[in-house]
Amino acid sequence: MIHFECDYTQGAHPKIIEMLAETNMEQTTGYGEDGHCERARQMILEKCRNKDAYVQFLVGGTQANTTVIAAALRPWQGVISADTGHINVHETGAIEATGHKVIALSNKDGKIAAEQIDACCREHFSSGNAEHMVQPGMVYVSNPTEYGTLYTKAELEAIGKVCRKYDLILFVDGARMAYGLGAEGNDLTLADYAAISDVFYIGGTKAGALFGEAVVITDERLKKDFRYMIKRQGGMLAKGRLLGIQYEVLMEDDLYTELGRHANVLAAKIKEAFLRKGYESYMDSVTNQQFFILPLADLERLGEKYSYSFERNTDATHALVRFCTSWATTEEQVNELLSDVAAL
Amino acid sequence: MIHFECDYTQGAHPKIIEMLAETNMEQTTGYGEDGHCERARQMILEKCRNKDAYVQFLVGGTQANTTVIAAALRPWQGVISADTGHINVHETGAIEATGHKVIALSNKDGKIAAEQIDACCREHFSSGNAEHMVQPGMVYVSNPTEYGTLYTKAELEAIGKVCRKYDLILFVDGARMAYGLGAEGNDLTLADYAAISDVFYIGGTKAGALFGEAVVITDERLKKDFRYMIKRQGGMLAKGRLLGIQYEVLMEDDLYTELGRHANVLAAKIKEAFLRKGYESYMDSVTNQQFFILPLADLERLGEKYSYSFERNTDATHALVRFCTSWATTEEQVNELLSDVAAL
Amino acid sequence: MIHFECDYTQGAHPKIIEMLAETNMEQTTGYGEDGHCERARQMILEKCRNKDAYVQFLVGGTQANTTVIAAALRPWQGVISADTGHINVHETGAIEATGHKVIALSNKDGKIAAEQIDACCREHFSSGNAEHMVQPGMVYVSNPTEYGTLYTKAELEAIGKVCRKYDLILFVDGARMAYGLGAEGNDLTLADYAAISDVFYIGGTKAGALFGEAVVITDERLKKDFRYMIKRQGGMLAKGRLLGIQYEVLMEDDLYTELGRHANVLAAKIKEAFLRKGYESYMDSVTNQQFFILPLADLERLGEKYSYSFERNTDATHALVRFCTSWATTEEQVNELLSDVAAL
Amino acid sequence: MIHFECDYTQGAHPKIIEMLAETNMEQTTGYGEDGHCERARQMILEKCRNKDAYVQFLVGGTQANTTVIAAALRPWQGVISADTGHINVHETGAIEATGHKVIALSNKDGKIAAEQIDACCREHFSSGNAEHMVQPGMVYVSNPTEYGTLYTKAELEAIGKVCRKYDLILFVDGARMAYGLGAEGNDLTLADYAAISDVFYIGGTKAGALFGEAVVITDERLKKDFRYMIKRQGGMLAKGRLLGIQYEVLMEDDLYTELGRHANVLAAKIKEAFLRKGYESYMDSVTNQQFFILPLADLERLGEKYSYSFERNTDATHALVRFCTSWATTEEQVNELLSDVAAL
Repeated sequence: MIHFECDYTQGAHPKIIEMLAETNMEQTTGYGEDGHCERARQMILEKCRNKDAYVQFLVGGTQANTTVIAAALRPWQGVISADTGHINVHETGAIEATGHKVIALSNKDGKIAAEQIDACCREHFSSGNAEHMVQPGMVYVSNPTEYGTLYTKAELEAIGKVCRKYDLILFVDGARMAYGLGAEGNDLTLADYAAISDVFYIGGTKAGALFGEAVVITDERLKKDFRYMIKRQGGMLAKGRLLGIQYEVLMEDDLYTELGRHANVLAAKIKEAFLRKGYESYMDSVTNQQFFILPLADLERLGEKYSYSFERNTDATHALVRFCTSWATTEEQVNELLSDVAAL
Repeated sequence: MIHFECDYTQGAHPKIIEMLAETNMEQTTGYGEDGHCERARQMILEKCRNKDAYVQFLVGGTQANTTVIAAALRPWQGVISADTGHINVHETGAIEATGHKVIALSNKDGKIAAEQIDACCREHFSSGNAEHMVQPGMVYVSNPTEYGTLYTKAELEAIGKVCRKYDLILFVDGARMAYGLGAEGNDLTLADYAAISDVFYIGGTKAGALFGEAVVITDERLKKDFRYMIKRQGGMLAKGRLLGIQYEVLMEDDLYTELGRHANVLAAKIKEAFLRKGYESYMDSVTNQQFFILPLADLERLGEKYSYSFERNTDATHALVRFCTSWATTEEQVNELLSDVAAL
Repeated sequence: MIHFECDYTQGAHPKIIEMLAETNMEQTTGYGEDGHCERARQMILEKCRNKDAYVQFLVGGTQANTTVIAAALRPWQGVISADTGHINVHETGAIEATGHKVIALSNKDGKIAAEQIDACCREHFSSGNAEHMVQPGMVYVSNPTEYGTLYTKAELEAIGKVCRKYDLILFVDGARMAYGLGAEGNDLTLADYAAISDVFYIGGTKAGALFGEAVVITDERLKKDFRYMIKRQGGMLAKGRLLGIQYEVLMEDDLYTELGRHANVLAAKIKEAFLRKGYESYMDSVTNQQFFILPLADLERLGEKYSYSFERNTDATHALVRFCTSWATTEEQVNELLSDVAAL
Repeated sequence: MIHFECDYTQGAHPKIIEMLAETNMEQTTGYGEDGHCERARQMILEKCRNKDAYVQFLVGGTQANTTVIAAALRPWQGVISADTGHINVHETGAIEATGHKVIALSNKDGKIAAEQIDACCREHFSSGNAEHMVQPGMVYVSNPTEYGTLYTKAELEAIGKVCRKYDLILFVDGARMAYGLGAEGNDLTLADYAAISDVFYIGGTKAGALFGEAVVITDERLKKDFRYMIKRQGGMLAKGRLLGIQYEVLMEDDLYTELGRHANVLAAKIKEAFLRKGYESYMDSVTNQQFFILPLADLERLGEKYSYSFERNTDATHALVRFCTSWATTEEQVNELLSDVAAL
């Protein structure tokens, strides 16, 4: 079976494994206050061109989302998100578990627009009845989105402007940021994320690390006591250096972006193969996740050899599915899929 | 100013005030374990034709919703509701504050249908991915709805059937139940609510009491330790007898339904007046809340003399508004409005 | 049966009932934004000699404690309290339900001292390990305490000073403030509470109202959006005027303090009677709650005619019990008890 | 600097690093449903002599405690713990963050006794006032305790008996279980833990793994939907196989217990050295954590070469400190310390 169902089916990039082995018997302080974390932090700050940003490393995406959102919001506030946003759909209510509503706006290509956020806030803050409704306190966007699409710099800046207008915190979920940074046509750098958003993270789990998300905070209010919040949410890793070590490797020579680019190139080939067969792309993704609406009969045939991610039936004979490449996907694996698709 | 903005602009039905004065210097046990509460409970159980149901009195609707929902759900479960449901829109995230997601389904006439609930559960429980999503654990319906419309007995029974299929708890928010019981065409009795749902409440605040909601629990699992939950949620009234006394009055000679009927008759007159002028009803309500889309110019004129509830602008020159009658609205007040509407 | 088990066995002071009846058919805006609430607010602010304080009315004590504490604390913070504090013992985990730990310090006479708070904070903030522990964010004191004892002005000022030192919010639970204001030897006025604490409340439920607690906020940070928090916690009373009306009566001619004084005088007589018999006072209360350690045999005899509050067995033949007077206790009731105690 | 401040200063046992490298490019299913996790599960069940137990792997201890406790308790319930328990002291309120009170009982040698739990429950359940207090729902014990001491099998069985009497869930925090299993005089096996408790975990983080805690559930009620709870708490590791792989190594040839024994032997030597110098042991630990009360002057000297864990000053010239060995501590490191202690 060749796995295309997600971007975390293997371990880590070999350089990471190597580095973990090399450093294994070093004795270090715990909880992310060791030299490896410190060095990884400096490398990230440099790429962000922001010496005052505050970097903390967490283990996983849901943990990062929950910790950041619950640290930022006051009890009566909610977080605005696309209805397709990971926090709204695939986190088993982890945000609500911290006492906050996800205010879902309808997505277009997996994204929300500045105008929608503005309308939502205008309606709330102009209502005589506002205190009977959840107060918007934050905007959450994933980039790349859950459907592989990308925000442009102009779009993100427009959202940032609305956020400042209503005193909302702008949070970018970068679980798959590597694939965004490495995408054709992408115009957002780490320095842009640091300049436009109040907090964002550089995802490792889905981009070559064993696990790990580097949270970068630029908003002063969020920095203070953030480590208390990590511990309270159960996210303080005892051997924190494991996270530092991995980011040292990923940040070196921009390996991180390189891994994303590798996966995107292979994903584009898969997309092309399906489109050439006349199949429909669900959303026009330029990154490593490709969604197609395919006949069930074809899916059954492909399923004998390839695993993919089943989303839902779209009608009696078709289903929406996802094919995913990663830093670890090989040219050979993709070529095999290409010829099998061509033969459908 | 004549108030039509809601159904709680006055104090309580005069008989309640009288009874509070009469019983004022009685010494009783606190926390709802006195003789008045006991008697009110028996009156309610009789009307529900269910001697084993468990009745507890709470002060307000948001408190009742929060206490019931958080007592019933396991941490990873959510509550299915119409997107227009009070818990989804107008409780400042009180449900999420207890750690649970409101799973909002699109409403039709303020209602959700058994088929929608079935589809939502089927999708969830058949997913290979279920544990990454909030598990449906309860269905919440308001009757009358937030828009004054009514579920029929057949509709509610169909929902109950789906609930049993997926082991969901069915909860009916009866904040305005008086207006439902007293509506033309209504075919649901208190005994029906007790038979079909697992828990519901008979709202007092909006139907002639100073405050108060009588929660009726028929599901065995919910009865045990429910009073701990009331206290934990801050809802245990020290002088609990105040609630018992009010329900004694409301249940006597079916005053409760009578008050609802009174308001509905007056609301129907208002509806007729607006329709006769060619204005549009937003939803076809048969109870005390009537929603209209009206020209802003007319609203301004009416607003000099009458208060109503502004919902939102529907276009540049129109707005959605609510006119509300209550047990306390007089024929004179309505007649004055009728002639002013006719003169628009 | 004559009730001495608590101070909320009757309805409300007759003047309150009268005023509720008089105002019953007035039409007012809901949610505490009516003229009665406004007037009651002004009366309170005047007594507090603080025109900028912010007053909101809530229904009960647990609700007030939960709403204030959860509004004030950040997620990783806890509230320091005497181990005998109401929030630590008798609220079924309502504070923890909002996600916060109660940091219990050992009490002396139901009170905690500035030095204890200082030591607790010093230990926390000087620890290299601080982020692994709950951060103190607030100090909660009840005055009178749960055992009827009183803080002096000097004691409360000392606590206030420590709070400013560590940036803690000082919160005074005044559920029984009437009995404090009316106590012999008390040197704390409402103006003092407003000057020393950041937030406190003037309890009505246990002092002559049907229900109600007037929360007075002087800390700017707590004022903003506090009403969202009330709604979120299920504490927004639809007919908010009921609270305003009651406080108008209680504040008029200082009826509130007068009711407290009445109860204290009667409680002192009961105390004297027990002490004269050679029984032991558990704590030296000067207010309406009196705790004694009594032989079980005597308790049984008294129990035939009087209800009291059983706290716990202290040894095989004795128990700790509470006798409580209130604004409604009569001279006759107390005299009857006095002669029965004398006859033991 | 030689580190004795905790048992997680290095990476993982070399066999774990080796196995991670070997398996790195395998493609597997995510979220702990792969073959490695399955095999590790079987190895654990065998050692537990319980084929029906349910095993899930989590990343860290606070996460494990929070997930288990919040999954087990109803909202109004609390968890009984020693006042020295990790959940009461060192988790930044993570338990309270899920809405539950930690009911702290005074410890003796870091432990609580069956009689204390019985008394606490008896007082609660016999109170007429029970619903105003948090209901005990679970007992939490750490073994080894936070001070390195051990429960005997008889002690744990006695606690288990009280738990069944009051329908409490018994939860054993085994973060340092390796050091307990490998301790001289220990009479508790994994099979005993499985037989006596309802849920416990076998800690990896502090015993040779990079990270990881294997939660073993024997209570039927806790098994259902437990994975939803893991995800909701942010604890679902995408590359779950990392946990399975590590436990395969630790369970093989009982490496796990062997690592604990190694550390205990070295810790005993350190203890002996300090006692021989006339210093005081704080608690009589038989495992890898040793607590001493030492003169500040001596600590300063030792501190130049060794790191230890500072707990608190005990008087003006002494402090309580911890020296900790681990699977990775070497004979040489300990011998160096021994001669430096002898030379004090």
